[in-house]
Amino acid sequence: MTVEILCVGTELLLGNILNTDAQFLAERLSELGFDVLYQTVVGDNPERLEKALKLAKERVDIIITTGGLGPTYDDLTKELCAKVFKKKLALHEPSLDAIKGFFASIGREMTENNVKQAYMPDGCDVFENRWGTAPGCAMEHSGKYLLMFPGPPNELKPMFNTFGAPYLMKLSGSVIHSDWVRVFGMGESVMEEKLRDLMVTAKNPSVAPYAKDGECSVRITAKAKTEKQAQKMTEKVVNKVCEILGDVVYGVNVDSLEEAIVQRATADGLTVSFAESCTGGLCTKRISDISGASAVLRGGICAYSNEIKRDILGVSGEDLDKYGAVSVPVALQMARGVRRLYDTDIAVSVTGIAGPKSDNTQKPVGLVYLALAVGKGDYSTYLVRTLNLPSTYSREKIRFVTASHAFDMINKYLKNRGE
Amino acid sequence: MTVEILCVGTELLLGNILNTDAQFLAERLSELGFDVLYQTVVGDNPERLEKALKLAKERVDIIITTGGLGPTYDDLTKELCAKVFKKKLALHEPSLDAIKGFFASIGREMTENNVKQAYMPDGCDVFENRWGTAPGCAMEHSGKYLLMFPGPPNELKPMFNTFGAPYLMKLSGSVIHSDWVRVFGMGESVMEEKLRDLMVTAKNPSVAPYAKDGECSVRITAKAKTEKQAQKMTEKVVNKVCEILGDVVYGVNVDSLEEAIVQRATADGLTVSFAESCTGGLCTKRISDISGASAVLRGGICAYSNEIKRDILGVSGEDLDKYGAVSVPVALQMARGVRRLYDTDIAVSVTGIAGPKSDNTQKPVGLVYLALAVGKGDYSTYLVRTLNLPSTYSREKIRFVTASHAFDMINKYLKNRGE
Repeated sequence: MTVEILCVGTELLLGNILNTDAQFLAERLSELGFDVLYQTVVGDNPERLEKALKLAKERVDIIITTGGLGPTYDDLTKELCAKVFKKKLALHEPSLDAIKGFFASIGREMTENNVKQAYMPDGCDVFENRWGTAPGCAMEHSGKYLLMFPGPPNELKPMFNTFGAPYLMKLSGSVIHSDWVRVFGMGESVMEEKLRDLMVTAKNPSVAPYAKDGECSVRITAKAKTEKQAQKMTEKVVNKVCEILGDVVYGVNVDSLEEAIVQRATADGLTVSFAESCTGGLCTKRISDISGASAVLRGGICAYSNEIKRDILGVSGEDLDKYGAVSVPVALQMARGVRRLYDTDIAVSVTGIAGPKSDNTQKPVGLVYLALAVGKGDYSTYLVRTLNLPSTYSREKIRFVTASHAFDMINKYLKNRGE
Repeated sequence: MTVEILCVGTELLLGNILNTDAQFLAERLSELGFDVLYQTVVGDNPERLEKALKLAKERVDIIITTGGLGPTYDDLTKELCAKVFKKKLALHEPSLDAIKGFFASIGREMTENNVKQAYMPDGCDVFENRWGTAPGCAMEHSGKYLLMFPGPPNELKPMFNTFGAPYLMKLSGSVIHSDWVRVFGMGESVMEEKLRDLMVTAKNPSVAPYAKDGECSVRITAKAKTEKQAQKMTEKVVNKVCEILGDVVYGVNVDSLEEAIVQRATADGLTVSFAESCTGGLCTKRISDISGASAVLRGGICAYSNEIKRDILGVSGEDLDKYGAVSVPVALQMARGVRRLYDTDIAVSVTGIAGPKSDNTQKPVGLVYLALAVGKGDYSTYLVRTLNLPSTYSREKIRFVTASHAFDMINKYLKNRGE
């Protein structure tokens, strides 16, 4: 079935906010097996919105709207959707109770204009809003469907997943299950090459590659009558994909490298610290993004200047002079230094040239050394990794990919340790 | 004049990428005084793309397309735009030379299909692509205009600013100049209240408020015959806005709080360090995002565990037991500790509860203490700030806003110091 995503909001037309709703819906819908043919954005203008709704009703099977469900006079999506789908609005008592309850929970009085949000199209399926006030809904007219969602992403996303996706799956008479295989250290084109046979032959489950932020993913999606059947179908293909890709797979159904590390290190009761130069705190920042990271992360030293590397981390001043800050000996001594100071099981250091300009040496932008130290005192073991990142990478990208490499080193150590 | 932004790309319909092009164009166009009425996304499908172009030509004055200008057979934007605007494609020699030059500069052979990119609509204004291969262009037919840009944001953005905006300004017979006043520490509604009279009366220059990531901005935009005139017009209003808002203004035409700090501290020859608990390295990370930060930032200690606060930063173990890690005495000692260790002119510490859960005390999520230490040895001066951030904030938002407060403390110190 074909879909048009119709986002309503003058703030989108003015470019005040990024349309993350459209991307979220597009991604989820394609995962669920629907064909998104159009995305449209219109402002809070009744005439243009009505025209856009009529056009969408002509050209696709399912319209999904976001935004314009609020309490103010310029929130008109519901009224116009009802008009185009030939429905009348009626007070929906459970929604009114829910809105009253929401205001009570945040200790505020409900103003009169909020009652408007509890009026719903006749005979629609109401999507309860547990994350805010305006409920969503789904309705049908002459074989066409329309689903309405509120605009704020923190309401839209859970409402779509909780109510929208099951409604759509019922329409299509099937259930979808997806697994994600996460990959670091292999380019997208090489990965596609390796998976090509599988991608071409596999229709259900389907196998789709993705690339983002210097890493790759493979999505395996099965359509079946029940969730259990679909799960069973993906499982086999997931194993196959992991087998083909080998050591570059860092996890299945895990959100990120940092989450994989936090999970593995927590399970093993191991602690981690970082000594960062060019990443400037990004490694500890990304690990501490993960809720529950405190079980693993003791902290880190951001040593942006040579004096700090020498005085705090104990890097030899002679080596700093002789080899420069961006060198293997300095990386090794930084890792040793922070592991001793923080007394952690694992320590990783990063020193490199993030650009846009080089330091005062001949070393190129994108040259980075990482060292991983494990084990206690004099019995530490070290691993070193050298990166020569493309000069076309931005400063931001060099720093991000470098931090990912630091996590990859830890993850590989944790994986191999367990085997 | 009215505008439709038409983005072409199946990867947008599948939700593989976020449509940052649309936001960028929408923001810039509204700044230039154009009314964006629609944003549309279609895939690489010739029939639907042609229909969308015809519809746009009917309903707006200016169409701006992004994407679909590449060398492969499914890149069809140029062909269909030419068709709808009744133009023939012809080889544009300067573009062919430029494309050949681009491939030579990255040391690769130009393949035959790239020649396609040098064919341009008859009589169009070609926008040279200095940032990639596919040139853009502008054309006119029966009073309607169409501007084409490549899809990659790092090509679209500079090409729009260099060629698109001047072309559009010529169309409208005027020049636009905008200044941005940056504000931290005042809510959007309070700011709007204070600026209301100015916003209502000021048409040219216009005064528009924005809110993002816990801070606010005011854009002052003037339209005039020359850039110089427009600049002169905004200058007065900028001063007026700064006067009304007072101390919460942290800079004019500066990108962020961290950039304001780096600029001010570099000018004064001062150095900065951080001791971070709940922000986990985010402060040093954000400062080191700024190219040239190394003149100012010596580094920081991420002290995610109590032992690190005690053993590295020298926080009293007794105070940690008595007051807990999230307390004023601990914040003060963390700032003192990192200032001594790193020997910087300014040091800021952060300790708080970022959530989603509290620590094992009665302290609420969103409670944060920051301390700023300046001066040498025993003659240090301290400033403390307490935050009680709303419990509805996500972990990510609490951390981000907290880091902004750390920067705001430094910025205020640097500003007052200079006065």
